[in-house]
Amino acid sequence: MSAKIVSEAAIRRLPAYYRHLRELEAAGVRQVSSKELGERLHQTPSQIRQDFNTFGGIGRQGFGYSVSELKTRIGAELGLDRGYQVIILGAGSIGSAVARYETFAREGFRIMALFDIAEERIGTEIGGAKVYDVRELERFLQENVVDIAVIALPASAAQDAMRRLEAGGVAAVWNFAPVDLQYQSSRMEVVNVHLAESLQVLTYRMAHRGEAAD
Amino acid sequence: MSAKIVSEAAIRRLPAYYRHLRELEAAGVRQVSSKELGERLHQTPSQIRQDFNTFGGIGRQGFGYSVSELKTRIGAELGLDRGYQVIILGAGSIGSAVARYETFAREGFRIMALFDIAEERIGTEIGGAKVYDVRELERFLQENVVDIAVIALPASAAQDAMRRLEAGGVAAVWNFAPVDLQYQSSRMEVVNVHLAESLQVLTYRMAHRGEAAD
Repeated sequence: MSAKIVSEAAIRRLPAYYRHLRELEAAGVRQVSSKELGERLHQTPSQIRQDFNTFGGIGRQGFGYSVSELKTRIGAELGLDRGYQVIILGAGSIGSAVARYETFAREGFRIMALFDIAEERIGTEIGGAKVYDVRELERFLQENVVDIAVIALPASAAQDAMRRLEAGGVAAVWNFAPVDLQYQSSRMEVVNVHLAESLQVLTYRMAHRGEAAD
Repeated sequence: MSAKIVSEAAIRRLPAYYRHLRELEAAGVRQVSSKELGERLHQTPSQIRQDFNTFGGIGRQGFGYSVSELKTRIGAELGLDRGYQVIILGAGSIGSAVARYETFAREGFRIMALFDIAEERIGTEIGGAKVYDVRELERFLQENVVDIAVIALPASAAQDAMRRLEAGGVAAVWNFAPVDLQYQSSRMEVVNVHLAESLQVLTYRMAHRGEAAD
């Protein structure tokens, strides 16, 4: 792995490259040029070549790239060349959706367990994973290797959950609670989803249709 | 509304301002300075003042801002000063989670109906909204005003859904299908969520911990 400074914007483009390469591979395409990828992704070919150079010197511009090689290379860069053991805190609507989302299982994210405080949910199964009493979280973390915790809790409960996860040795959190958790600890990796804020970007655009900013 | 050019980055900061102002209001705070807001949001006070100036001249730096006035002003900028009629295409895990997500209902997004192709889902209720046969979509769009459609379908079905929504006069789509829909039509506003790609940003960071880029 290179130790170059990689911009946050470039990191966020990688999953889109990966998705398009997977689509090309599924369609039987074997070679792709930076121009063709650029057209698919609405980026300039030079941006694409620059990104591929940044991520460890993926070369061969002019001759095109091998779709499967490039996909494997970018998948490894994204950490998708391994499996992940996942737990979900909160078995409400969002937590249940993540547990049931087949795409994640197919891509190597194994949902080990959910945790909740509601008596009626504890002991049930969601998407094939058992719902535990959240009081069992510490014991579970002692007995199992957990790579990623999904926080699907109200904002008021998310901070305490972070503390317990960190104490239990969980290094990565995918957070759906409407609160920015990334600043609370320097030892954990956190990505915040903020669904409501994504919807508000849509309503912003609806409210400002036809303005110069469009 | 101002006709200034507003950057995509500034638009994406607005919902976070709104969330923090709502938290401050709930905590009984009545005045806030750009310095205090900056500390909460991990932004410089000058960035915050610049954003507020861009969005229609929200002034009063030095004296602080009125929390409730600022929240109302930014809420209006985000289009949250009205209600929205919403339908959901796809009553699977993601579509059901959106239908059940209480936060949206509380913020004025009324889920009118879901649409699906699966016989066993049609006629059921999810989060208080009825699931219709997707073949009834055109009739529903003729008889009802729909502001926003949520696409919670497989990628292969999303494109056709877009076409039908556009033909039915729906102007805004919140897309959860793993495909970029914004380039397909210039007449509709689309925000793509791409949950899998958000998770891949997390695994990227896990794979590159301790590198210079961190």
